[in-house]
Amino acid sequence: MEAGPAASFIQDGMVVASSGFTKSGDSKAVLLALSERAEFDPLQITLITGASLGQQTDARLATAGAVSLRLPFQADPVMRTLINEGQLMYIDENLGETAAHLKTGIFGDIDIAIIEASSIKADGSIVPTTSVGNSAVFAALAKQIIVEINLAVPSDIEGIHDIFLSGNFPDKAVTPITSTGQRVGRGSIPCNPDKIIGIVFTDKKDSPADILAPDKTTVQIASYILDFLGSEVRAGRLSNSLLPLQAGIGKVANAVLQGFAESDFEHLTIYSEVLQDSTFDLFDADKLDFASGSSITVSETCYQRIFQNWGKYKDKILLRPQDITNSAEVISRLGVIAINTALECDIYGNVNSSHISGTHIMNGIGGSADFAQNSYLSIFVTESTCKGKTISRIVPMVPHVDHSEHDVDILVTEHGLADLRGLAPRQKAEAILKNCVHPEYRDMLQEYFTEACTRGGQTPHVLEKAFNWYQNLRLTGSMKRHHKFQEPSPDLS
Amino acid sequence: MEAGPAASFIQDGMVVASSGFTKSGDSKAVLLALSERAEFDPLQITLITGASLGQQTDARLATAGAVSLRLPFQADPVMRTLINEGQLMYIDENLGETAAHLKTGIFGDIDIAIIEASSIKADGSIVPTTSVGNSAVFAALAKQIIVEINLAVPSDIEGIHDIFLSGNFPDKAVTPITSTGQRVGRGSIPCNPDKIIGIVFTDKKDSPADILAPDKTTVQIASYILDFLGSEVRAGRLSNSLLPLQAGIGKVANAVLQGFAESDFEHLTIYSEVLQDSTFDLFDADKLDFASGSSITVSETCYQRIFQNWGKYKDKILLRPQDITNSAEVISRLGVIAINTALECDIYGNVNSSHISGTHIMNGIGGSADFAQNSYLSIFVTESTCKGKTISRIVPMVPHVDHSEHDVDILVTEHGLADLRGLAPRQKAEAILKNCVHPEYRDMLQEYFTEACTRGGQTPHVLEKAFNWYQNLRLTGSMKRHHKFQEPSPDLS
Repeated sequence: MEAGPAASFIQDGMVVASSGFTKSGDSKAVLLALSERAEFDPLQITLITGASLGQQTDARLATAGAVSLRLPFQADPVMRTLINEGQLMYIDENLGETAAHLKTGIFGDIDIAIIEASSIKADGSIVPTTSVGNSAVFAALAKQIIVEINLAVPSDIEGIHDIFLSGNFPDKAVTPITSTGQRVGRGSIPCNPDKIIGIVFTDKKDSPADILAPDKTTVQIASYILDFLGSEVRAGRLSNSLLPLQAGIGKVANAVLQGFAESDFEHLTIYSEVLQDSTFDLFDADKLDFASGSSITVSETCYQRIFQNWGKYKDKILLRPQDITNSAEVISRLGVIAINTALECDIYGNVNSSHISGTHIMNGIGGSADFAQNSYLSIFVTESTCKGKTISRIVPMVPHVDHSEHDVDILVTEHGLADLRGLAPRQKAEAILKNCVHPEYRDMLQEYFTEACTRGGQTPHVLEKAFNWYQNLRLTGSMKRHHKFQEPSPDLS
Repeated sequence: MEAGPAASFIQDGMVVASSGFTKSGDSKAVLLALSERAEFDPLQITLITGASLGQQTDARLATAGAVSLRLPFQADPVMRTLINEGQLMYIDENLGETAAHLKTGIFGDIDIAIIEASSIKADGSIVPTTSVGNSAVFAALAKQIIVEINLAVPSDIEGIHDIFLSGNFPDKAVTPITSTGQRVGRGSIPCNPDKIIGIVFTDKKDSPADILAPDKTTVQIASYILDFLGSEVRAGRLSNSLLPLQAGIGKVANAVLQGFAESDFEHLTIYSEVLQDSTFDLFDADKLDFASGSSITVSETCYQRIFQNWGKYKDKILLRPQDITNSAEVISRLGVIAINTALECDIYGNVNSSHISGTHIMNGIGGSADFAQNSYLSIFVTESTCKGKTISRIVPMVPHVDHSEHDVDILVTEHGLADLRGLAPRQKAEAILKNCVHPEYRDMLQEYFTEACTRGGQTPHVLEKAFNWYQNLRLTGSMKRHHKFQEPSPDLS
């Protein structure tokens, strides 16, 4: 059927689930048709996905006022504005946990799921496209399903999906993955064909990833990480093929993965969420043996390259449900080296990944906590400052904690790497002050820490000054300017 | 040998590991002998345990200045003072993670491990006593081992230990536990007998647990939880035997477990860290089928009762290494219902479990994050106020985050229960304001939240006022008094 009639199944107040993970494998017709309809036929839905959608879908739905509740992740600026205004409720979830939350029924039944597919098999099961995300749990739980068969996706994508369903409590099964390349599930998503109420054909590529080329700062950060991992190998703590790598999205993570291509490490593996351009660069550099993720999210040129040489990559990739890629069980068993981006970090190693100035959400926590909490090594990267150095990304106290000091092993900025393992909080502060903070903020931060220590404590702070930097920023446009203004000048003293 | 000569193996600067988990199965002779020696022969060690020790050992070692670094948990007031003064470095760790950290070698080699035992088997393996804790990893890694054979422990304790070693990366094994009562390991701790440099005999019971009887407040909190779980059963989300229970230490958790004895729930199981008096009360009430933990920590009367009727309990208990009881893999597979105590919680559901006023550590995070992050239901309990209501335990923003809002499903005080599942942050604030906060603080908290919302954001805050309550407390002795003082009176306006 056409997208319009398919969208008409969706009614005001429904819980709607859609495939899609970091812009890949998402609904490309029905949700857009819904947004068009909503402009003249007001309705509001709960929208649940794998992660972010492409095609401007979140923007269009938000503009049409068609979403009352959104989870577990989104990255669109228009929708973000409504969220921060409190007009659209947003549940920012750990991406590995949504499937389990849905199984409890706390969001109510899923009325309709929209799942992009490469094909539907004779048994009704659905072959996904460039992402798996939460589609398997959507297919299991939804009352009705609309399938979007995307003819733009090469049909020989079939074979890279590994759909493992762990079952429900109290009979949840072992997820038996003991190496990144081990297939444990089936190639398509089980689906009761009676639930399929519509099939829509599309012919549209995924929205491409925005790849920012490495720059001086990100290359510097990458080199610290590569040097550190090299020293871990020399210390006998890691082999030359390291442990499975996970890297979040962002230019720093991208630069780090690109750095591996020119490194001495060999036979690397990836156990991550998103397979990005850098994954395929590592395959081409003959550095990577296998990559497991929940989506392929790449630039337009990389997309062409992959699918024109599909035979070269196909046997080295598995796409899995996001509750498997982000599973605490599997991550803690494999011993992943996780590299994620911090918005900011405080002197004790607590990380804010999601909230600007502690209040306004940027995107969300994504899978960063799934990995940081369970990895062998949890590395966070950030530039030491931003916005022309008016903002230090190393602060006295982060006003929003996504990752506590317990889940942050290594912090890296373009100024250096702080190895926080085996350190007590005051020692962590010294390591971060010494290695990570921008020189223009070092004295201010040292001054704060010194004053805090006079107050005592395992984790010293001066609570009434802990957020002064944000107050400075709000009032003067810079974290530091106001501080200088506060200094009594010789003339006045 | 005698304890004194055994302690003389320990030299200044050594890394010393000791058995002991919440005061059970700890060294009762060698560490005390070391503390006596340290009074006239100054030395400092790194001391690594399972969790807290009994016998005033931490107090005596701290008084003697014999510890430079302590991990992963301690609960002694004397040592706490040194920690908060910055004189003794303390690494407060997730209790399930220490074994993995030790395997990386980041704390250096363990020079000597002291392990309390019931006996040593012919193959050199060690039968533990009332706790397992980290003893298995200590025995594997330590260069030398001193065994304390405690004759006060009934020898037929043998048989309740389940020692599973998951191995090292990249070959870490599946931990195949799929039900609380499933034995997966061996009955004693593997040990190379060549490493045993001394055997000391003791005849001393564990320090007893301090059990506080339920009072009006804790019984009220317990009843909210039991009612809530009952409603989950009626909603079809849980069976009448629920899912395995975990309860932290403390009078509220104790009251909750006691409440189960008079409930309609049946065939309960426990998958927890510490088996407390309430565990055995539930066995006696015929409500509990099985209990898995890492220690038995009970009152003196309960201890007598257990070991005088050992046959009644022995087949229903397993004691496991703390990296198994607190394993993300197993907790997330079993779907544990975790009940832990918050020091304080903020309006968005972020929990502080460890730091008074954000700076001074009380005990530590313990196993609370291991369970909160991976459980099916993460419940946090706290009284709404303390110290004659001068302190509200529900605050605008916690100044130390051990558990982010993502890991807190249910918050309960004596005023009510807030079910935070499926809510966005602003909705969580409304639920907590409505159900949990003490009436004397409700207006203040509502006022903060209302002002915060005028600033906008996914998680609204007024950063420059977020910690005013602590400032009030520091300056006036009450979180509220100063607030009243700030209110302009009609006479002055």
